[in-house]
Amino acid sequence: MAPLKLGMVGGGQGAFIGGVHRIAARLDGCFDLVAGAFASDPARAHASAAALGIAAERSYDDYRAMALAEAARPDGIDAVAIVTPNHLHGPIAKAFLAQGIHVICDKPMTATLEQAEALMQAAKASTASFFLTHNYTGYPMIRQARQMVTDGALGDIRIVQADYLQDWLSDAPAADNKQAAWRTDPAQSGGGAIGDIGTHAYNLACFVTGLRTRSLSASLRSHVAGRAVDDDARVTLQFEGGARGHIWASQVAVGNENNLTLAVYGTKASLRWVQEDPNVLWLSELGEAPRKITRGGHAAHPAAAAVTRIPAGHPEGYLEAFATLYREAADAILAPDTLTPSSALIGISQGLDGVRFVDACQRSSNDGAAWIVLE
Amino acid sequence: MAPLKLGMVGGGQGAFIGGVHRIAARLDGCFDLVAGAFASDPARAHASAAALGIAAERSYDDYRAMALAEAARPDGIDAVAIVTPNHLHGPIAKAFLAQGIHVICDKPMTATLEQAEALMQAAKASTASFFLTHNYTGYPMIRQARQMVTDGALGDIRIVQADYLQDWLSDAPAADNKQAAWRTDPAQSGGGAIGDIGTHAYNLACFVTGLRTRSLSASLRSHVAGRAVDDDARVTLQFEGGARGHIWASQVAVGNENNLTLAVYGTKASLRWVQEDPNVLWLSELGEAPRKITRGGHAAHPAAAAVTRIPAGHPEGYLEAFATLYREAADAILAPDTLTPSSALIGISQGLDGVRFVDACQRSSNDGAAWIVLE
Amino acid sequence: MAPLKLGMVGGGQGAFIGGVHRIAARLDGCFDLVAGAFASDPARAHASAAALGIAAERSYDDYRAMALAEAARPDGIDAVAIVTPNHLHGPIAKAFLAQGIHVICDKPMTATLEQAEALMQAAKASTASFFLTHNYTGYPMIRQARQMVTDGALGDIRIVQADYLQDWLSDAPAADNKQAAWRTDPAQSGGGAIGDIGTHAYNLACFVTGLRTRSLSASLRSHVAGRAVDDDARVTLQFEGGARGHIWASQVAVGNENNLTLAVYGTKASLRWVQEDPNVLWLSELGEAPRKITRGGHAAHPAAAAVTRIPAGHPEGYLEAFATLYREAADAILAPDTLTPSSALIGISQGLDGVRFVDACQRSSNDGAAWIVLE
Amino acid sequence: MAPLKLGMVGGGQGAFIGGVHRIAARLDGCFDLVAGAFASDPARAHASAAALGIAAERSYDDYRAMALAEAARPDGIDAVAIVTPNHLHGPIAKAFLAQGIHVICDKPMTATLEQAEALMQAAKASTASFFLTHNYTGYPMIRQARQMVTDGALGDIRIVQADYLQDWLSDAPAADNKQAAWRTDPAQSGGGAIGDIGTHAYNLACFVTGLRTRSLSASLRSHVAGRAVDDDARVTLQFEGGARGHIWASQVAVGNENNLTLAVYGTKASLRWVQEDPNVLWLSELGEAPRKITRGGHAAHPAAAAVTRIPAGHPEGYLEAFATLYREAADAILAPDTLTPSSALIGISQGLDGVRFVDACQRSSNDGAAWIVLE
Repeated sequence: MAPLKLGMVGGGQGAFIGGVHRIAARLDGCFDLVAGAFASDPARAHASAAALGIAAERSYDDYRAMALAEAARPDGIDAVAIVTPNHLHGPIAKAFLAQGIHVICDKPMTATLEQAEALMQAAKASTASFFLTHNYTGYPMIRQARQMVTDGALGDIRIVQADYLQDWLSDAPAADNKQAAWRTDPAQSGGGAIGDIGTHAYNLACFVTGLRTRSLSASLRSHVAGRAVDDDARVTLQFEGGARGHIWASQVAVGNENNLTLAVYGTKASLRWVQEDPNVLWLSELGEAPRKITRGGHAAHPAAAAVTRIPAGHPEGYLEAFATLYREAADAILAPDTLTPSSALIGISQGLDGVRFVDACQRSSNDGAAWIVLE
Repeated sequence: MAPLKLGMVGGGQGAFIGGVHRIAARLDGCFDLVAGAFASDPARAHASAAALGIAAERSYDDYRAMALAEAARPDGIDAVAIVTPNHLHGPIAKAFLAQGIHVICDKPMTATLEQAEALMQAAKASTASFFLTHNYTGYPMIRQARQMVTDGALGDIRIVQADYLQDWLSDAPAADNKQAAWRTDPAQSGGGAIGDIGTHAYNLACFVTGLRTRSLSASLRSHVAGRAVDDDARVTLQFEGGARGHIWASQVAVGNENNLTLAVYGTKASLRWVQEDPNVLWLSELGEAPRKITRGGHAAHPAAAAVTRIPAGHPEGYLEAFATLYREAADAILAPDTLTPSSALIGISQGLDGVRFVDACQRSSNDGAAWIVLE
Repeated sequence: MAPLKLGMVGGGQGAFIGGVHRIAARLDGCFDLVAGAFASDPARAHASAAALGIAAERSYDDYRAMALAEAARPDGIDAVAIVTPNHLHGPIAKAFLAQGIHVICDKPMTATLEQAEALMQAAKASTASFFLTHNYTGYPMIRQARQMVTDGALGDIRIVQADYLQDWLSDAPAADNKQAAWRTDPAQSGGGAIGDIGTHAYNLACFVTGLRTRSLSASLRSHVAGRAVDDDARVTLQFEGGARGHIWASQVAVGNENNLTLAVYGTKASLRWVQEDPNVLWLSELGEAPRKITRGGHAAHPAAAAVTRIPAGHPEGYLEAFATLYREAADAILAPDTLTPSSALIGISQGLDGVRFVDACQRSSNDGAAWIVLE
Repeated sequence: MAPLKLGMVGGGQGAFIGGVHRIAARLDGCFDLVAGAFASDPARAHASAAALGIAAERSYDDYRAMALAEAARPDGIDAVAIVTPNHLHGPIAKAFLAQGIHVICDKPMTATLEQAEALMQAAKASTASFFLTHNYTGYPMIRQARQMVTDGALGDIRIVQADYLQDWLSDAPAADNKQAAWRTDPAQSGGGAIGDIGTHAYNLACFVTGLRTRSLSASLRSHVAGRAVDDDARVTLQFEGGARGHIWASQVAVGNENNLTLAVYGTKASLRWVQEDPNVLWLSELGEAPRKITRGGHAAHPAAAAVTRIPAGHPEGYLEAFATLYREAADAILAPDTLTPSSALIGISQGLDGVRFVDACQRSSNDGAAWIVLE
């Protein structure tokens, strides 16, 4: 199967997540990167394109021009990856969706709820698909956890705990730290820890358990003088059906790199997973000795095997999980009819859920951790 | 130095914590158990005494009689260990304090705040001392953590997370489970997970950080049909000075035995400790690789060494930590003048704090997790 | 049951293992220490005795005198603990055995094979029993491992790996390090790492598997200039029946405290245990996810439960395991008829095995790692 | 930079390592796979090529024809990846080297020493380069370990322990297990565990320490009835300069997946690394608390950073390490002059070392673990 043709907006020199998307797109051979608007500054955009081996005529300095030009080419891109700061996701995605070009967008979907709702409308009006890269859902053991919950292995779920701890914003960042600059600017990011990593934790909790949130109460704090966004967030979730969820997202938890953990406690069993050791899933059945389930190992589920590339004991990591999302997006683009209701793909609906989550957390926190009902 | 003479109330055949106290009292040779009222049922009391090698004349079936008789003997007990259900702690302690006999009491101090305040008054009126066995404070690495906080190694504390997870009450317990019976009877226990293990987590957080609680918000839940007490508790603490604390105590977290963990995050460093692996303290200084500090090892602090018995790599456990409290109580009884303000001993004041904590959590939870100001 | 009366030879001020034996003897209330010859220097012996609360008349400066005097007293000691340097174990043990006093002796049994064989004769001629404190055999999960091997849970054993790694002799020790002084003096110790810790690893491998050694090949090395004994030892064991064993004992493995590990691989399953985390036993059945068996936990075997004091998740450590040996010795002294062939007690026979092991390793190593047949 | 053009021999449908090489070649965008002789059976070869999107004219059923045809094309391949059973490596490599086509070959280099020496001659006579995929050398923390040894952080090395434990051959494999079939056929593999995984452990030990082997003693065993090759190997290495190395490679160690570990003990410090948790390197300096060094973390060395793609806490795994070898091969092909003596590239010389190692181990084991001097 020939690879699909991919464009990219953002991700020029000095950016972070663009490089990750490029590896992920390439890893399974599903996409060739052939066009891009890698930066808003034309010089940097074209220099980035050249370094990436993009033909000069397909290096754009404006995403709108890119959407039009690529749609007009017979060999135009099938999909575009959007890896800009959050506040640009919406307008860019709309421009490509309007041309029938599929969108693969980094998270959170938008910086504001208004943007998210507008994008939802645009997606509904488009023939193209929208994919959101909540990349942790690509880990094989997360797929296994999700399937085990679906299969009833945990009984009724009582408690979900999802923590995402970092420490890179424990101090005021250096002035030239581009990543820190836009992520701590509410106009560009839409939020701090709650948007940047809290949405990952929330998405993961919902992805694995299938639970829907009825209401939430949140407390967002900022620990560093002059910081305009939260850097530490606590959220309590009341799920439909009675289970409770708890999220802790922090960027000031000294000693943590990307310590994302998920624990799900049911009446019959619990599961525990740690992103920094992602090839392992701990299963504790009530009254039994805990078991260490490994990716590719003897207790691996077909749902995990389907997204596993290499044998047990040879670790797959973050890039492989990310690449799984690209592969599944490619599969969906090529054969949309084969998508089932149980598909693991994350799209516009989950993207809107995530932005609603951030919005509700901010409103709750501003109102003394008041309970906010989600629709 | 001859051992002190110890009596015990509770802890007869079929009990749990009494045996722990007996080993702890004996381990360092500081106490000889010579008298007891081991059960309210006379036959079981005397059978227990005989099995423990207690002289028949010093086996009592009533703690009031025991307090009077032992106080009258020239070789009467120096101290009494109280290991009954919680609602009896207060009256028993008062009976012995009234006779000038020192009290070593299991936690929580009482089942109700009213009992706690009455006991506080009795303790003030007595010449004898009151010791509360928040035994986790006896672990060497907890002593090191506390000293490091005091020494400023963490900078200003921002966040304290103390979790105590168990799973033994995930289902309705068997009818003949004595431990479960009284611990889930609010009249005897005063509370569920919040009193039984939440107080440990709370005490530990305060012991290590030295922080005082200004206010708290709590949510107590019960997951098993027919259970009259909470089995899962979440508490947010607002400390004086601005730090936040978070406690999670659960007895329905399948896969956990006695998973008590403490993490303290400061501006300069964090500490992390896990009770099930108690000989290790993790130190992460901002911008440095994390370090594994071991009991007796190269980075052990004198505060840890002072309560360490054997070299690094030979684990000390729960009983040794418990025994440290008995040894320190003996030292205090024998030389009360040597006690310093920085003593690690837990007494009536911390006991009252613990019961106030439980009371405030219950009131908060009953009022929709409202914020309750502690005095 | 009244405690047995215990004497001690060695273990005075400045010693290490004597204090461990005293705690172990006391922990379960099975022994009262009432007499001792705590040092060869009279002043230090009596000062030590006084500090331990021993009556002056039962503080001896000569073990021979002690054996005679205690045997003559109506309230004389039932047993003596020998905690001297290795070369004194034999003569001291013989003196007490000759008086019908039970002996509890630290390992290795003697410094030379000649001493061991002489002691074996003395033990056969005595009415008293001889117990050797290979204390790691007292850990509950080691008892479980042994029982699982016996029950066939592992199938046929193929490979046994026992490592004991320390680093405290990585450099030449300080001149005033008493422990290092005698342990690196071949006349007092009989050997270096191979005798001090290699015998523990060997004993543990044999204890758990029940295998008998047919022959061995050893390489002993010394890494520090001027050191007269080995500090790093590798031994290959050929067991009867075809299984192979491998032992690595090192005192120069930087970063290790008391890292004793045992792994047993069979045709059907393997077990893995780590002394520094002793409450866990890892079971891997072929084709199954590994299971974490915990002391006191859901998969704990009665053989482990029999030597378990407190519930799962509250760690027991080195002193508890050591105390189990004292308790079992007390039981055996009080009711020798109840001892079964499957008793876990370590005695003269295993002591002789251990000294033969050291002797064979030294001969093999001196002969270029030649294979030595054990009888 | 345009990708280099890659061909492949072997790796058709049903194979294992071919797919790994394809992902590794593609991950960093350094190679495009454009030609192949994917199987000796023409139908399977062409079906595999079609599935991989290879143009029909560049799908070959004979590697000799492929070498000639590709060399003759103006757009012929720059390099070929050889992923066949071991006994074919030599002839295939020679065919491509003779045409000036670079070779990237799976390990071990050949099945016999004779083949290895012939290949060495062919490589010397060629203008093209030969690269051997000892992929574990691509892990960032292995690069850091190597640099730390070079920098003297460990002092003088005393002991190297490299273990590679698997369990997939604990039983006789199923008849249709292709991987097991050729790997346990000495004619195709040249050896069992010693060649398949022992060479990895040996290479890694030498790569990190820079030590050269003077002599070795080996014991190879086979535990499964009817197996013609070893499945468990123990090797002792005498390095030049006095250090000792120990290798344990097993395919019958139940409970192990790909448990490759390396520990290096020096006079000043030790390092420990575990392949199944590859983003961590443990550093223990004598007299200091151990430190956990993470890929991308605060103590990461530039040597690690140079082969790191994503930030700390987002795990990179086996495929990334493998891809690093492909990227470095591409760099060397494109700019051979920039290669320095400290290059991490593994080539013909290390390949010959590996086959000599296997040969010496087999001779030693056949001669009762006799010491064999390596040249």
